[in-house]
Amino acid sequence: MPSVNSYAAYQAKEALKPYQFERREPGPHDVMIDILYCGVCHSDLHQVRDEWGGATFPMVPGHEIVGKVSQVGSEVKKFKVGDSVGVGCMVDSCQECASCGEGLEQYCEKGFVGTYNSKERDGKTSTQGGYSTKIVVKEDFVLKISPRLPLDKAAPLLCAGITTYSPLRHWKVGPGSKVAVMGLGGLGHMAVKLAAAMGAEVTVISSSNKKKEDAHRLGATQYVLGSEDETFKKYNRYFDLIINTVSASLDLNRFLGLVKRDGAMVLLGIPERPEPIHPFPLVMGRRSLAGSLIGGIKETQEMLDFCAEKGVASDIELIPVQKINEAYERMLKGDVRYRFVIDIASLK
Amino acid sequence: MPSVNSYAAYQAKEALKPYQFERREPGPHDVMIDILYCGVCHSDLHQVRDEWGGATFPMVPGHEIVGKVSQVGSEVKKFKVGDSVGVGCMVDSCQECASCGEGLEQYCEKGFVGTYNSKERDGKTSTQGGYSTKIVVKEDFVLKISPRLPLDKAAPLLCAGITTYSPLRHWKVGPGSKVAVMGLGGLGHMAVKLAAAMGAEVTVISSSNKKKEDAHRLGATQYVLGSEDETFKKYNRYFDLIINTVSASLDLNRFLGLVKRDGAMVLLGIPERPEPIHPFPLVMGRRSLAGSLIGGIKETQEMLDFCAEKGVASDIELIPVQKINEAYERMLKGDVRYRFVIDIASLK
Repeated sequence: MPSVNSYAAYQAKEALKPYQFERREPGPHDVMIDILYCGVCHSDLHQVRDEWGGATFPMVPGHEIVGKVSQVGSEVKKFKVGDSVGVGCMVDSCQECASCGEGLEQYCEKGFVGTYNSKERDGKTSTQGGYSTKIVVKEDFVLKISPRLPLDKAAPLLCAGITTYSPLRHWKVGPGSKVAVMGLGGLGHMAVKLAAAMGAEVTVISSSNKKKEDAHRLGATQYVLGSEDETFKKYNRYFDLIINTVSASLDLNRFLGLVKRDGAMVLLGIPERPEPIHPFPLVMGRRSLAGSLIGGIKETQEMLDFCAEKGVASDIELIPVQKINEAYERMLKGDVRYRFVIDIASLK
Repeated sequence: MPSVNSYAAYQAKEALKPYQFERREPGPHDVMIDILYCGVCHSDLHQVRDEWGGATFPMVPGHEIVGKVSQVGSEVKKFKVGDSVGVGCMVDSCQECASCGEGLEQYCEKGFVGTYNSKERDGKTSTQGGYSTKIVVKEDFVLKISPRLPLDKAAPLLCAGITTYSPLRHWKVGPGSKVAVMGLGGLGHMAVKLAAAMGAEVTVISSSNKKKEDAHRLGATQYVLGSEDETFKKYNRYFDLIINTVSASLDLNRFLGLVKRDGAMVLLGIPERPEPIHPFPLVMGRRSLAGSLIGGIKETQEMLDFCAEKGVASDIELIPVQKINEAYERMLKGDVRYRFVIDIASLK
């Protein structure tokens, strides 16, 4: 069995440390990947701290994985050794339910198998993520990465990219759409780039002016403060879609007033607290408050191809794995522009 | 000017009493209607008690109006004396904005003119509703009522009917759809009848078994209790659409779990309190929490024609206007199956 080096949390809330474990031998439908880069997602932090409950340890986080195929199973058709590939938040699903049938494995009725902190379909084997040198994944859950994409900056597309791309497509954003992005972090900066690449007019709604220049560079034409009354006057019923990436507590009712009739605010994060929602802004404009979870495998490939075509990738800060605990601390303070990516060479 | 008899609230929270006032002379585009029946909507109660603020008195409530045309202006094309007609919640709108252009006058960007407790477009004249013997309304806001519909039972279609019909159509309910209706009152009983007439499988979610037989008679195939754990197990991710007519406080997050992926819960009422909404059920199934407000004029006509064709009307209790204060008391206790309708002959 292939032995891998990794960084793992041995217990909730403890610093990550080196950990060695074995991956399964690739089966006929598996692809073995030498990992080159792995993005650091906010959900890594939630899970190593067991903030969502049910965490199992040791836990190797990481679901924004990019690397090169080093071995393929006998039945693998789509990949060959040396291909640049990616793995996102899912490594398996039932592939039988209606959602899987529609290519929406993220909503698999039996629950998808997460790339880490999850159980394989056998119900026993724990999955381990991309802060590691190799991973073995079923072909159907492996994505192709175009040579036009820089591999390190492509890593965050596998979670932050698809999580924002999917709702933009689902709510039919295109030329002429007016999109607001609440919060300019890992998800938010991808939402701005992707919505702009789709031809939308993009407005960033932020809590401070610190990222104003960045927002414009990323593709936003407007930058407004969520704390100013003027914003609510000027942009009343203005947006077709608000992509809300903010996990802090906010008066969502007020922001819903910025949405046009029949528009939606889509929540991408899972804050720990429920938010009080008043029916008034929903009823008075047939507005929706909705949510969206990552995206399906087919759509993830579509997003990667779209990014390659449009020259879209993540703004990253490349770090050696030894800096991961420090990176987590900085993420908590919002001190990253806009995604940490681990250079897996540092694990070898 | 045509003098009319009516019942009005002279002050917030006071009992309604007889009131005489004058309607405007019908202009070239106006229709004068001899009112025969007027439904009693929960919003009448909210407004005579000034629970939504900004009420003006004396106030003649009533926006579920059915009668016969008694006079038409020189330019009126669609109506002639003797026609059976209806008037709902709106008597005017800007007719220039995008919403009005799409036939969605209820979302008029300048605000529609309510049938009562509102100001005409001149900003001065108070509108007065259907607890009265006559009304004068702009032709464009008058609906035709088919001779196939019983006029007394048709009155509630003008608000309760269109308020439930519009979201059922907007969220594309048809044969094969699974629709849940929360709350079996004035709105709820119309939602059940209309969804069943559209070919949907209808489930009533109630707080007690008191209306079980009624629900089946109205067209529901299932009747379940919102208080039982079994409901949440059996109907997990079951419904395409939940029409929520309940204004009491409920844990909406739990009920959202009953909605399928990409389904919606639509709020039709405006409770006084906001409800805490957790992003989890929204994100995990790309579900929406939405709202919907009455319906446009074109759609109201479509609904009335649909009801005539399908034999759908409201279950009513006909009362003389002198019983209106008692009727309000009974409505507060949920003691009406399912709509009070005032026989306007009692005002003459």
